[in-house]
Amino acid sequence: MSARASAEPPTFRSAQVAEAGGPFRLVERELPEPRRGQVRVTVEACGVCRSDAAFVDAAFPDVRFPLVPGHEIAGRVDAVGDGVEGWEVGERVAVGWFGGNCGTCLACREGDLIHCAHLQVPGWAYPGGYAESVVVPASAPARIPDELTAVEAAPMGCAGVSTFNALRRSAARPGDLVAVLGLGGLGHLGVQFASRLGFETVAVARGAGKADAARTFGAHHYIDADAGDVAGRLRALGGAKVVLATAASSDAMSAAVDGLRPNGTLVVLGATPEPIRVSPFQLIATSRSVHGHPSGTARDVEETLRFAALTGVRPMTETRPLDEVGLAYDRMLSGDARYRMVLTTGR
Amino acid sequence: MSARASAEPPTFRSAQVAEAGGPFRLVERELPEPRRGQVRVTVEACGVCRSDAAFVDAAFPDVRFPLVPGHEIAGRVDAVGDGVEGWEVGERVAVGWFGGNCGTCLACREGDLIHCAHLQVPGWAYPGGYAESVVVPASAPARIPDELTAVEAAPMGCAGVSTFNALRRSAARPGDLVAVLGLGGLGHLGVQFASRLGFETVAVARGAGKADAARTFGAHHYIDADAGDVAGRLRALGGAKVVLATAASSDAMSAAVDGLRPNGTLVVLGATPEPIRVSPFQLIATSRSVHGHPSGTARDVEETLRFAALTGVRPMTETRPLDEVGLAYDRMLSGDARYRMVLTTGR
Amino acid sequence: MSARASAEPPTFRSAQVAEAGGPFRLVERELPEPRRGQVRVTVEACGVCRSDAAFVDAAFPDVRFPLVPGHEIAGRVDAVGDGVEGWEVGERVAVGWFGGNCGTCLACREGDLIHCAHLQVPGWAYPGGYAESVVVPASAPARIPDELTAVEAAPMGCAGVSTFNALRRSAARPGDLVAVLGLGGLGHLGVQFASRLGFETVAVARGAGKADAARTFGAHHYIDADAGDVAGRLRALGGAKVVLATAASSDAMSAAVDGLRPNGTLVVLGATPEPIRVSPFQLIATSRSVHGHPSGTARDVEETLRFAALTGVRPMTETRPLDEVGLAYDRMLSGDARYRMVLTTGR
Amino acid sequence: MSARASAEPPTFRSAQVAEAGGPFRLVERELPEPRRGQVRVTVEACGVCRSDAAFVDAAFPDVRFPLVPGHEIAGRVDAVGDGVEGWEVGERVAVGWFGGNCGTCLACREGDLIHCAHLQVPGWAYPGGYAESVVVPASAPARIPDELTAVEAAPMGCAGVSTFNALRRSAARPGDLVAVLGLGGLGHLGVQFASRLGFETVAVARGAGKADAARTFGAHHYIDADAGDVAGRLRALGGAKVVLATAASSDAMSAAVDGLRPNGTLVVLGATPEPIRVSPFQLIATSRSVHGHPSGTARDVEETLRFAALTGVRPMTETRPLDEVGLAYDRMLSGDARYRMVLTTGR
Repeated sequence: MSARASAEPPTFRSAQVAEAGGPFRLVERELPEPRRGQVRVTVEACGVCRSDAAFVDAAFPDVRFPLVPGHEIAGRVDAVGDGVEGWEVGERVAVGWFGGNCGTCLACREGDLIHCAHLQVPGWAYPGGYAESVVVPASAPARIPDELTAVEAAPMGCAGVSTFNALRRSAARPGDLVAVLGLGGLGHLGVQFASRLGFETVAVARGAGKADAARTFGAHHYIDADAGDVAGRLRALGGAKVVLATAASSDAMSAAVDGLRPNGTLVVLGATPEPIRVSPFQLIATSRSVHGHPSGTARDVEETLRFAALTGVRPMTETRPLDEVGLAYDRMLSGDARYRMVLTTGR
Repeated sequence: MSARASAEPPTFRSAQVAEAGGPFRLVERELPEPRRGQVRVTVEACGVCRSDAAFVDAAFPDVRFPLVPGHEIAGRVDAVGDGVEGWEVGERVAVGWFGGNCGTCLACREGDLIHCAHLQVPGWAYPGGYAESVVVPASAPARIPDELTAVEAAPMGCAGVSTFNALRRSAARPGDLVAVLGLGGLGHLGVQFASRLGFETVAVARGAGKADAARTFGAHHYIDADAGDVAGRLRALGGAKVVLATAASSDAMSAAVDGLRPNGTLVVLGATPEPIRVSPFQLIATSRSVHGHPSGTARDVEETLRFAALTGVRPMTETRPLDEVGLAYDRMLSGDARYRMVLTTGR
Repeated sequence: MSARASAEPPTFRSAQVAEAGGPFRLVERELPEPRRGQVRVTVEACGVCRSDAAFVDAAFPDVRFPLVPGHEIAGRVDAVGDGVEGWEVGERVAVGWFGGNCGTCLACREGDLIHCAHLQVPGWAYPGGYAESVVVPASAPARIPDELTAVEAAPMGCAGVSTFNALRRSAARPGDLVAVLGLGGLGHLGVQFASRLGFETVAVARGAGKADAARTFGAHHYIDADAGDVAGRLRALGGAKVVLATAASSDAMSAAVDGLRPNGTLVVLGATPEPIRVSPFQLIATSRSVHGHPSGTARDVEETLRFAALTGVRPMTETRPLDEVGLAYDRMLSGDARYRMVLTTGR
Repeated sequence: MSARASAEPPTFRSAQVAEAGGPFRLVERELPEPRRGQVRVTVEACGVCRSDAAFVDAAFPDVRFPLVPGHEIAGRVDAVGDGVEGWEVGERVAVGWFGGNCGTCLACREGDLIHCAHLQVPGWAYPGGYAESVVVPASAPARIPDELTAVEAAPMGCAGVSTFNALRRSAARPGDLVAVLGLGGLGHLGVQFASRLGFETVAVARGAGKADAARTFGAHHYIDADAGDVAGRLRALGGAKVVLATAASSDAMSAAVDGLRPNGTLVVLGATPEPIRVSPFQLIATSRSVHGHPSGTARDVEETLRFAALTGVRPMTETRPLDEVGLAYDRMLSGDARYRMVLTTGR
């Protein structure tokens, strides 16, 4: 919020797109007060996720313009609405894909919060984190431990929790062979988490040039997908108990199924409408599975952050100030970012 | 074994196919003695399974001719080889798809016997149950409780254990909605097991005419697949926690995925090389899975038989004497059998 | 609510105890309106649970007098407070031990609602169901299916959900041997649920006279605990995968541990401060467990009711009008009730 | 085996006790040939475990004298009996508490090998590893990876696999708080494994002096049990999801139960006949468990060794030559060993 004379109401800036496809425009608006059950968060950093493009391009349903994307938010609580318990002004929080649940649908009553029928995603259900301030439901925030900066914490709300949660809830046990397909925003965290979870970790990516980076992140093995036969090479290592597919390529996923050992699972994170193709013959005798994994709840994000603090997992980021949002977004789109673009607000 | 003068060695008859594609021919041979670690079983009944056709037609690898199919065997132990513990002459036993494990491969050492790298299937690894006698590894038989006849027990070694095991090991809990795709040899047992396991059970088959039979087997709901939109109608019932796909149609399986509720699983039993097509979009937000399930071990068969004895599950069978094997086989192939063909030997 | 001239505010009667141990007294008060987030329920029936005595006698902490006990409530929604979603006037609902969760504590954020740090139990946190009307948090009610009457539904909110939930979430699989210790308010439901869940069910109670009743409820075996050596007799049946201890006797629980098979679990429902005694020698080689199980959430109650509707499980009850609350309470205390006392209001 | 003229048969030495209570005596005998299904192993190292004293003192049933203890064996296959598959002369192997299973009992047929009804423990069922050579069933050995020496591998067959297996099969997930009670032969490995498994790890032992060692092994927190209120201090850390009790003190175990968070488990490894005391009140509302954990199978030992190779877990050992067996044994008994005594043979 720009400094102002006290007579004027405080404002904040956000990066909006006015219609599908974009471009971004910085807009200054009056700072809203949180309503009942809401919390207002000063944004310090916000990750730029590939799925933001699905909102910007209106590829997902129910996208409304003008749109402020951003669901990898880190900052501080600066105001608390009526009836809110558990949050105080000044607390450092992250708000990720899980931007609030309804509490009353069937899934919520089952305690299965991530499948809330009215799950609110920041930058979709309400204005997101490409901004200096956001107002979110009180069920959305996750505490950030001191060990992580805002820039480090921001990507944990989506890229981090998706990979950590998928791995810790998989059937893989410590010592098992786990492969991570893709070494981008999600993958570079997936490899770090997999190795800290005690898995024998295989990174699979395109090109020989990423082998060193993969090993830096903790991979015990590297497979260059461009060299072909990923499945055969996984089997040569004993077969994977889990293949964590972070790259949104259904063809790559289909090709990895035969690299699973008996009882192995292909865990699908990479979102695309293209079909995976897998035959009963590939699944039955070996009891293999293909399983989709969503993000995680606010509590899952909190546990992701705590685990990262405990074991040293950190996203590798490129930062840009909010003013350069278009540039940051393009760099994410190009796939050149190493490995996660994060917008900063200087707050 | 035909009655003979004592001077002549005892013999037995079996139904062989001399080359891929058949036909069957009854052959009489000298009765072999079980070797070390083997048990000989007088066959009383043997189910005719659709996968027998994959052996007869050499559609599976490593099929050797002449071939005696048959992996749904029920009978009595009549001789025991050296070093065998646990089996005595006269015990009633079933031998199903699990016709013996090696005990020394990685899977066996993990206790994961059904994934034995050298799993021996009767009628594939050694002469099967379309015969008056079989010799099997001592790890193959399962005890039959008094409540079941040989004809009732025989199909439990494959059709029974596959469906029971898949359901009891699934994530579905009692009261959950479970759909069974197909109402043939496997499906009619699947519906019975599902209802006795306490699931709200949906039978899905082609044509309105099967609704009454489905209800007789215990289904609470019937969906006529010919009327279209199976997924939509499953969702109207709340969405299935498990869809048990017994019909070998990958298209039908693909079409059922959207009928799963969050955390639901399509369990694949129907074997075919045709690919199932399922997109990440269908799996991720809902945490759905596609999972292959094989048969079960000898102990699983035993538990299937015990559960059937406890709860009244029985296969509905048509029996034919071994002499009419060709007729029985054709009736299985045509899909007209109601619901499982079983060969009997009069022993 | 007694019929009144419209000018006077509506009233309702409740059965209160004024001080610890105290007798019950019927009190008429003005009918309160539900506040924000609350629902008001016309009580039709309320079970009398043994743990009510712990409140009446102030054996539990934080009991405040005057006290209206009752946490096995069945009735109809008759008013809905502000901000409540999901409930409409006229809906039939049960409210059991789980009388509302906070939504903001660690457990709630984990989706582990039954372990809410501020769990509200009717008749403890707020006036309970020994009354013509209750006001409860909107998170408390569970829908009652048409198949169950209010008298049948009421005990499902505690006795029913405790036993059903404990069994379906145990490691026992269909066909496994499951023993139920005690054949009272919980036990007679436990035996019914166990048999409908497909378990080979053993009822264990005191005296030969209960054998017939146990079989009526679905038990396959009956063990007279007065005849001694319960553990030995369970082992003679193969050993129990689960012993569900509904009787609040730590000695009986301790004595049952050796009746568990490998990987078996003693599931503790019967609440008492007396210690269970179990040695490492009894646990280690056999991987046995002793596990406590609480009640279940509103959604669990709903699933219990649905399962009961599906499979025919019903509590056996003795009913008394609310006016005879003292008599009903004494009959519960004496242990003579067959098998659950339920108060009715005539509404 | 001492070098000899070729005309004389080869011999080997072993440390025997002639009657209950000892002492040890070195005996030289002719080297036996492995029989059918057996493997002979040249012993290079053998751990001295506290449970060896239960054999030496005949505190366990069916102990026969003269006795050669030792069930933490590391060495090389030097001869293979008839019918053995999977082992070749020269392979480096460990043989731990799991010294062979029968393959035919109910548990073995269920794939639950560790609960084999005829489990053979080296130094109990047959002469153990306080020797230069052992002959074991072919189901007993586990491969040793190159990264571990024989002295490092030996304790993994009991102390290592017990703690690793108990932890990886517990309900604790990475990031959860896990406490290890005791910091001796098992405990110092338990702490190492817990931290490498991604748990927030608490070491609990007697005396402030062990805090530094605990941190060296990877503990994030240290609780001095002598300072009292272990449970309260665990709760102050958030409550433990798992307390791994390696110390054979039932009092210490009982005292730790209240340090468990909801759904937490006390995992019992420390073998003693003294009863743990735990009340239903301590278990029910919190869904806590007390669970016994045995050792692990040969495959589990192999996975323990692989995980140790992958993550750097190593036992801290004191070695003594086989000649000094009495001295090593006494040092184990005294509890002074830091942290595992290992006998070496110079082979």
